[in-house]
Amino acid sequence: MSLLETIQRSFQSSESETSSIVVVGTVAFDSIETPFGKAERIIGGTGAYISLVASYFTQNINLVSVVGGDFPKSHLKMLNDRGVNTEGVQIRENEKSFFWQGKYHLDMNTRDTLVTDLNVLATFDPVLPDGYKSGDFLMLGNLTPAIQISVIKRMKKRPKLIVMDTMNFWMKHTPKELAEVFTMVDVLVINDAEARELTHEYSLVKAAKKILQMGPSYLIIKKGEHGALLFHESNVFFAPALPLEEVFDPTGAGDSFAGGFIGYLAKTNDISYDNMKRAVIYGSAMASFCVEKFGTERLTELTEDDIEERVNDFVDLVQFDIALVD
Amino acid sequence: MSLLETIQRSFQSSESETSSIVVVGTVAFDSIETPFGKAERIIGGTGAYISLVASYFTQNINLVSVVGGDFPKSHLKMLNDRGVNTEGVQIRENEKSFFWQGKYHLDMNTRDTLVTDLNVLATFDPVLPDGYKSGDFLMLGNLTPAIQISVIKRMKKRPKLIVMDTMNFWMKHTPKELAEVFTMVDVLVINDAEARELTHEYSLVKAAKKILQMGPSYLIIKKGEHGALLFHESNVFFAPALPLEEVFDPTGAGDSFAGGFIGYLAKTNDISYDNMKRAVIYGSAMASFCVEKFGTERLTELTEDDIEERVNDFVDLVQFDIALVD
Repeated sequence: MSLLETIQRSFQSSESETSSIVVVGTVAFDSIETPFGKAERIIGGTGAYISLVASYFTQNINLVSVVGGDFPKSHLKMLNDRGVNTEGVQIRENEKSFFWQGKYHLDMNTRDTLVTDLNVLATFDPVLPDGYKSGDFLMLGNLTPAIQISVIKRMKKRPKLIVMDTMNFWMKHTPKELAEVFTMVDVLVINDAEARELTHEYSLVKAAKKILQMGPSYLIIKKGEHGALLFHESNVFFAPALPLEEVFDPTGAGDSFAGGFIGYLAKTNDISYDNMKRAVIYGSAMASFCVEKFGTERLTELTEDDIEERVNDFVDLVQFDIALVD
Repeated sequence: MSLLETIQRSFQSSESETSSIVVVGTVAFDSIETPFGKAERIIGGTGAYISLVASYFTQNINLVSVVGGDFPKSHLKMLNDRGVNTEGVQIRENEKSFFWQGKYHLDMNTRDTLVTDLNVLATFDPVLPDGYKSGDFLMLGNLTPAIQISVIKRMKKRPKLIVMDTMNFWMKHTPKELAEVFTMVDVLVINDAEARELTHEYSLVKAAKKILQMGPSYLIIKKGEHGALLFHESNVFFAPALPLEEVFDPTGAGDSFAGGFIGYLAKTNDISYDNMKRAVIYGSAMASFCVEKFGTERLTELTEDDIEERVNDFVDLVQFDIALVD
C-alpha cells in the first residue's frame, strides 16, 4: 500500500471501524516565554494537547480532567467542536484552574518552570462518566500515579491498550505507586532523561531492557529534537524528529506526540508492532506541527492535507532503497 | 533489489568496476582514556581510520600522510595488508610522529584533549606519488586548509568527487583559506557544533542552507549518537546512529563514518544523491563498529557478514511500511 493509500484509508475509514479513546490529563492555563515571544494564560495541559491532537484521527475522544470556574467555556467548546467529549471534565466553580508558567532558554532544549499553581489539581479525583467506562484505548497523561491507578480501576473493562506518560517528579517522590502503574499498562512514553533517571543507566538500550521488565510491553523514549525510539521485546525502531528551520515553542510537543500516537492507533484499530511504528511516525509528525506556533495554535488549524504532506516529509527523510532481508 | 542483493553486488563486483580513492590525513599515535579503560600510543589519526575503513569496500586506496621514525613499520604493514597503498606516507626518520592524548567524560559525548604534539605534522607538505594523481575520489581528512588546497592542486585531473572534513579550529584561525577549500569540494562533512559555529545559526536547517551557498553541493552534519543528516539542494536525508548498549571509545568514529561513506561510493562508482543516502548508512554502520572497542581494534577484525548484518540492523531500525508518494 502506498503512503497515499494508507493515509486515504486512514482518513476515509468509517466511524464504526475506529475505536474510542479515554484521555486523562490536565487542562490548564499556560504562560510561556520563548526567545520568539510571550503568551499569557493560554489553554494548555496534557489532556488538552492529547485530545486536541487525537481529534484529527477519531471523533470518539473522551476527556477526563478538572478546571476551575475561571476557565473560559470557549476553550472547552473549542475541544467539543473538534469532537472531544468533555463530560468528564469537572468544573469547580469556586476554585482556580491549574496554572503553569515557564521560560525557555535560547537553545529551546531547556526551560525553567517559574510557576506551578496546582489549584484544582491538588485534590483532583477523576470521575468517569458511564459512557467512558468501556473505552477501547486509554491514554494516561502525566499525573500522579495514584490518579492513573484510579482511572484504570474505574474502567468497566480492561481497555485494549493502555498508554501512560509520567515524569521524573513521580520517580523521586512516589516510586512505589509508579512501579504499580507500570505493571498495569501496555505502553510507557517517557523522555531520555527520565529513562536514565528511572534505571540509572546512561545507555538507552540498557535502560529500555530494564524498563521492559517493569511491566510495559512497549516503551517509547522521546529524545526531543533527536527523535524517538520504540522498544518492544528485542526490537527497536527509530523515528527522527523533522529538522525544522524554527522552533517557536516546544510546549506540548510531547503530548502532541502522544495524541498522534494513540489517535492513529485508535483510528486504525490495530495494535501490532508494525502499526505502532506507523503511529510513532504520526506522533512525530503531530509534534513537529506543535512547535511551529505558540501553545495549541498550530494544532487548531491543520488540514488532512497538512498531515499527509508532513508524514510524507518523514518518509522522504529516512527512506533509502536498501530493502529489508526477511 | 533486496539488501542482500545490494550487498552481494557490492562485495562481488570486480576490481575494474571500483574507483580509486586518495585519502589525505594524519597517521598518529593516540593515547586514550575512557571510563572503560586506557590505551597508550596506539595507531590513530584521520588518515589511518579513513583508509582502514574504506579498505572494506575497495582495494584501491592511496594514503597521503607523514610519520616520524618512531612509527612502527608493523602499523604501516597492517594498512598495506588491508590493501592500502602507503607510498604517499612520508617517513621522517629523525622526527617524531604526531601524538594526541585525550580523556573522555563519563557520558562519552565530551572529551578533554590533554596533549597535541604536532611533531612531523607542523611542517607537513603533502607529496603525491604519480600513481595517486589521477585518483577518482579524493577524501581530505581534517588538516590545515592550506594542505587540503595543495593536495587538490597537485592532482593531475579534477577527481570525480572531493569530500572534506574540517574542524572548528580552522574556522577560527584560518577562515579565508577554509572558505577557499569550500569552493573546491563537493561534499563537506562536519559535526553539528561546527555547523553552528560556522554559520552562527542554531537551527541545523538554516545552517545547512548557508553552508550549501559556500561551495559544497552536499553537506553531511554528524550528530554523534544522534545520527547524521545529508543535505543536498532542498533535500534532507537522516541516518540514525545505532542505539548501542555500550560505547567503549568514540575516537575515530567520525573518520570511520567518512571512510565508510567514501568507500561505498568508490565501490559502487555512483555519486547520485540516492547512492549518497546509502553511503551515509554504510558510513553510520562503520562508525557503529568503531566505538565498540578501543582505537582501530574493532576495524581490523570485521567480516563482510558483520557489515551486511549491521547495515541490516539500520534497515530494521528505521524501516516502516508507509511507501513514498512519488
